[in-house]
Amino acid sequence: MDVSALLTSAGINISVTSLLLSVYSILRKQPSNLSVYFGKRLASVGNRLDDSFSLERFASSSSWIVKAWETSEDEILAIGGMDAVIIIRIIVFSIRIFSIAAIICILLVLPVNYYGNDIIHMEISSESLEVFTIANVEEGSKWFWVHCLALHVISWSACVLLYFEYKSITRTRLAHITGSPPDPSHFTVLVRAVPWSSEHSYSDSVKQFFMNYYSSSYLSHQIVYRASTVRKLMEYAVAFVYFKTRYAAIVAAEVLHSENPMLWVTELAPEPNDVLWSNLCIPYRQLWFRKIAILLAAIAFMIVFLAPVAFVQGLTRLHQLSHAFPFLKGMFKQKYIKQLVTGYLPSVILILFQYAVPPTMMLFSTVEGSVSHSGRKRSACIKVLSFTIWNVFFVNVLSGSIMGQLNAISSVKIILNQLAAAVPIQASFFMTYVLTSGWASLAVEMVQPLGLVYNTMKKCVCRIKEDQPNGFLSFPYHTEVSKLLMFGFLGFICSVMAPLILPLLLIYFVLAYLVYKNQIINVYTTDYESGGKFWPIAHNSTIVSLVLTQIIALGVFGIKRSTVAFGFTIPLIFGTLLFNEYCRQRFFPTFTKMSAQVLTEMDRQDEQGGRMEEIYQQLRSAYCQFRLISQDLCKSGRMDHQGDQNSIRIHSQ
Amino acid sequence: MDVSALLTSAGINISVTSLLLSVYSILRKQPSNLSVYFGKRLASVGNRLDDSFSLERFASSSSWIVKAWETSEDEILAIGGMDAVIIIRIIVFSIRIFSIAAIICILLVLPVNYYGNDIIHMEISSESLEVFTIANVEEGSKWFWVHCLALHVISWSACVLLYFEYKSITRTRLAHITGSPPDPSHFTVLVRAVPWSSEHSYSDSVKQFFMNYYSSSYLSHQIVYRASTVRKLMEYAVAFVYFKTRYAAIVAAEVLHSENPMLWVTELAPEPNDVLWSNLCIPYRQLWFRKIAILLAAIAFMIVFLAPVAFVQGLTRLHQLSHAFPFLKGMFKQKYIKQLVTGYLPSVILILFQYAVPPTMMLFSTVEGSVSHSGRKRSACIKVLSFTIWNVFFVNVLSGSIMGQLNAISSVKIILNQLAAAVPIQASFFMTYVLTSGWASLAVEMVQPLGLVYNTMKKCVCRIKEDQPNGFLSFPYHTEVSKLLMFGFLGFICSVMAPLILPLLLIYFVLAYLVYKNQIINVYTTDYESGGKFWPIAHNSTIVSLVLTQIIALGVFGIKRSTVAFGFTIPLIFGTLLFNEYCRQRFFPTFTKMSAQVLTEMDRQDEQGGRMEEIYQQLRSAYCQFRLISQDLCKSGRMDHQGDQNSIRIHSQ
Repeated sequence: MDVSALLTSAGINISVTSLLLSVYSILRKQPSNLSVYFGKRLASVGNRLDDSFSLERFASSSSWIVKAWETSEDEILAIGGMDAVIIIRIIVFSIRIFSIAAIICILLVLPVNYYGNDIIHMEISSESLEVFTIANVEEGSKWFWVHCLALHVISWSACVLLYFEYKSITRTRLAHITGSPPDPSHFTVLVRAVPWSSEHSYSDSVKQFFMNYYSSSYLSHQIVYRASTVRKLMEYAVAFVYFKTRYAAIVAAEVLHSENPMLWVTELAPEPNDVLWSNLCIPYRQLWFRKIAILLAAIAFMIVFLAPVAFVQGLTRLHQLSHAFPFLKGMFKQKYIKQLVTGYLPSVILILFQYAVPPTMMLFSTVEGSVSHSGRKRSACIKVLSFTIWNVFFVNVLSGSIMGQLNAISSVKIILNQLAAAVPIQASFFMTYVLTSGWASLAVEMVQPLGLVYNTMKKCVCRIKEDQPNGFLSFPYHTEVSKLLMFGFLGFICSVMAPLILPLLLIYFVLAYLVYKNQIINVYTTDYESGGKFWPIAHNSTIVSLVLTQIIALGVFGIKRSTVAFGFTIPLIFGTLLFNEYCRQRFFPTFTKMSAQVLTEMDRQDEQGGRMEEIYQQLRSAYCQFRLISQDLCKSGRMDHQGDQNSIRIHSQ
Repeated sequence: MDVSALLTSAGINISVTSLLLSVYSILRKQPSNLSVYFGKRLASVGNRLDDSFSLERFASSSSWIVKAWETSEDEILAIGGMDAVIIIRIIVFSIRIFSIAAIICILLVLPVNYYGNDIIHMEISSESLEVFTIANVEEGSKWFWVHCLALHVISWSACVLLYFEYKSITRTRLAHITGSPPDPSHFTVLVRAVPWSSEHSYSDSVKQFFMNYYSSSYLSHQIVYRASTVRKLMEYAVAFVYFKTRYAAIVAAEVLHSENPMLWVTELAPEPNDVLWSNLCIPYRQLWFRKIAILLAAIAFMIVFLAPVAFVQGLTRLHQLSHAFPFLKGMFKQKYIKQLVTGYLPSVILILFQYAVPPTMMLFSTVEGSVSHSGRKRSACIKVLSFTIWNVFFVNVLSGSIMGQLNAISSVKIILNQLAAAVPIQASFFMTYVLTSGWASLAVEMVQPLGLVYNTMKKCVCRIKEDQPNGFLSFPYHTEVSKLLMFGFLGFICSVMAPLILPLLLIYFVLAYLVYKNQIINVYTTDYESGGKFWPIAHNSTIVSLVLTQIIALGVFGIKRSTVAFGFTIPLIFGTLLFNEYCRQRFFPTFTKMSAQVLTEMDRQDEQGGRMEEIYQQLRSAYCQFRLISQDLCKSGRMDHQGDQNSIRIHSQ
């Protein structure tokens, strides 16, 4: 691929993106599309929007940019919760680190790459993109210290930025938890695997157990039912147990209760809106097995997915393809078709196929048995991210060799050498990937084509006039976080090798900053949140990217016989891993456990303020398994009864 | 190596073992050696033994065998504690599983191996040992189902036996804990990383913190001091905090206290005798770093250790050696020297070198920062075991190839193929290893040469007459458990490949059963114990052995082109891993955490029996950092003072 092909691709994508954004700025002004583009506002303001909003309707197209730009982090926290803050912080972190990387690499590394070889340079537009990569620097060159220096600067800056981000996010998370109104989930423990007894019902067993061992702090409990097909409620081994203080709840959640660790299993309950009721019915003893089965299924899925990737790989290596199918030769002689096929088509095909991935991973995470929506999204996020990195990066880079040797497990050293040799060459593909999957998909995210079609169908075909609910959307963190991290991954990997990708990435992240802020303010509602638990995923992903970048650079320095650069890269790898271990010790536990000190202080404040009774009242109706009819039932406080409940017929979800 | 060489080796070892055991039965009757062979009894009976003991002195030599055989598990539990029971259970498990393996493999597999090839067999004594291994079965033979069947029987039996062992040991452990007199460590929490404050002393900080958050259950505390070189006590950030109930202690031990997870770090305290005082002074924030550093150091140690192993390897391949050094040729022509060099010398050299390993690993575990003696031994046990398996097994088997390719990381498949090809051939070395390192070292363990020399020196040179203390020995679990597990590992690996090793192993385990029982009854004292935490190590080691056996068998079936056997082995690997995961879920947590239900019941019984005040009294003097002079100080209950303590001058350990 040469510079002009890249420019073609960039041109197409800039046009598409601009077009879509213009379409968006027109569509958003149409009152009929309110529910598509202002779902969040609709949800908070109610069915009809007030007049001030109508005025805004006629504002200029760029108003959303100004609005998104001006919204502060505190406002985002108030509007979208902690998880929304995390996604903005991931973007801000990426903008910062890739600005540093871009300055260093464009100013220092790019000239070294370009003049790294004694070749006569062509006109810049027909220059191959490989000329701008490290592959162009001749073997044994004395200039590799520039790459090594750039790698050091990037790694050190990334670690420093990561440290302060982790620290400040930990503080924000804590302040958010202590500053929010009392959360029922802090008082509630989810008890699974209540042992079966022929003498007592599950409800009696739970009551007896907690009255016995937690007599001073046990408040009440609520058994989880399963609506069976015969419309009768089943007598189930899962319960929510309410405690009088947050501290008592966390103690009950963390202590091992029975001699048999697979009985009386406790954990802190998810927020009421976050509970995934359908998964509560999975017997606890199945969970470990389900997790292993899903792991194997996910690996199998990744392997099956090699087919479309191999096809895409063929398109980027056009000369090989036309060698195999001679009849294509004539077609590829036309310059524009060639540029289109090599520069644009591959990533479009890949993106289309990849639309199947998030729903599949979501399905996997559901089957895995997560008890909360946010936990399921987090688990799906990790799966999508690993999948994307594997399929977009490794398979693309290694496919040539992997395809030929699928039956043999290649040696580590060979794989490393192949990575080192292939990354600079494949960089052009990643650039077009940033253009298509990055820029264009952000514009698509703004326009919300699915929502638009659904809304139009509803209004035109079904003749429904109301703007009201039918599913306000919640933010698809599992796809968006993994997308951002994937681009961060590509950025780190390519930074020193092929720095031309960095400006494209920076534009992507700035655009993402505006688009996601706008979507958080206007579109997505926040019913539940994980409290910032996406940050450890982002942190780990960044560390993996960094270490892999360093290892690949090591490989390149090895191939290019630069012993100095090679030697100076090794301590960097160890340093990064040590830094990660330190962060895991210092910050990570606060994302999995709540500090007893903080919870006790919160309890005391509520006790002194006399708010405890009120909280207990809220608690009684917080976890309502069967909506609608049963809402009254729950509110009346009949929680640990289990007699005639035939009136409850609607099973949520 | 041929059969006669093995018989030579066996002959030498049987003579050595018998000789040593006879020497033992004479030496143990000498009153002057009382402190060497009856340390345990001396410790329990007091300085002078009573008359009944003097009569026993003239009993027949085999009396100790009868006594050891007749001692029941309950007696062992009473005499040596839970850890002693574990070591006996490991031996019993090994005897059971290798009896099954021996029956199956000698009856079915051995004939198949022997007649697996159309060769004319020589006289049995000059037959090569390889004839008895799977290497002798010709490629594509239809008889590999026998090996596959044997592998299935062994794997299934091992899993069933492991399950029932784990179950029964869990029950025994629980009964031991509930049945024992109140243990101060159940009421005590070790607090590390007490934050530094310029206003308060550490002692005041601890008091204030626990009075604030655990006002109802906090009893008192005791700061850990460090005796500095100027004989003044340092003001230290570590404390033992005593609680009023076991339940309160476990809650305080398991909850995350501060927002900063590296402050106020708590864990259940070790037993008073088990505390490793010198390690308490290591700042908590260093621990993670120390662990990583020690891991790297242990790996480096393993690599350095390749040198002696390579030498040993050379001796077993005599023809290669005499090829390299022609002047040795004449020497090796003498039959007996050749048999001695190939059959006996290699493992003797290896054993001598390996005497350096346990102390080194113990040093590593000390530096790592373990706060208890038993924890240090457990950590050293894992290190010694990994080291032995790596050095005795992998390096021996692979050394030919590894030596040549040390700079290249070989591919997984190549390594597997090499393992599969090398194990049957190397089996003869493992047999002599069982004979020398197994049989003979048990006899050496009985005779206690070091103790004997020390005792003689003391009496003859220093003219000390008393039998009294100067170090009663505690059981060296880290060397003995890892030795037993190593032989189990060899047994599993060789069982199907080279079944001749099994009878030798069975003899070893029966001998070990008698020897270790005798040593537990008579020699080693039990000051502290881990409460059976060695069992999970044994379980995991057995699973690793099983899976590796299956994988190597898979490799052999692959090389020998037996698709049926290959196909039937794959599900076995997955089945074993799933079984292990189940055990990890079902049993393992009870070895790391105490069940709240059990502790609460124990608390209630003590409260109802009115024993609590008495326990609190004991608690005040339980953890005594400075022995001798300070014993009175501790007993007087002055624990949380920190004024003038110049009188305390003796620093234990």
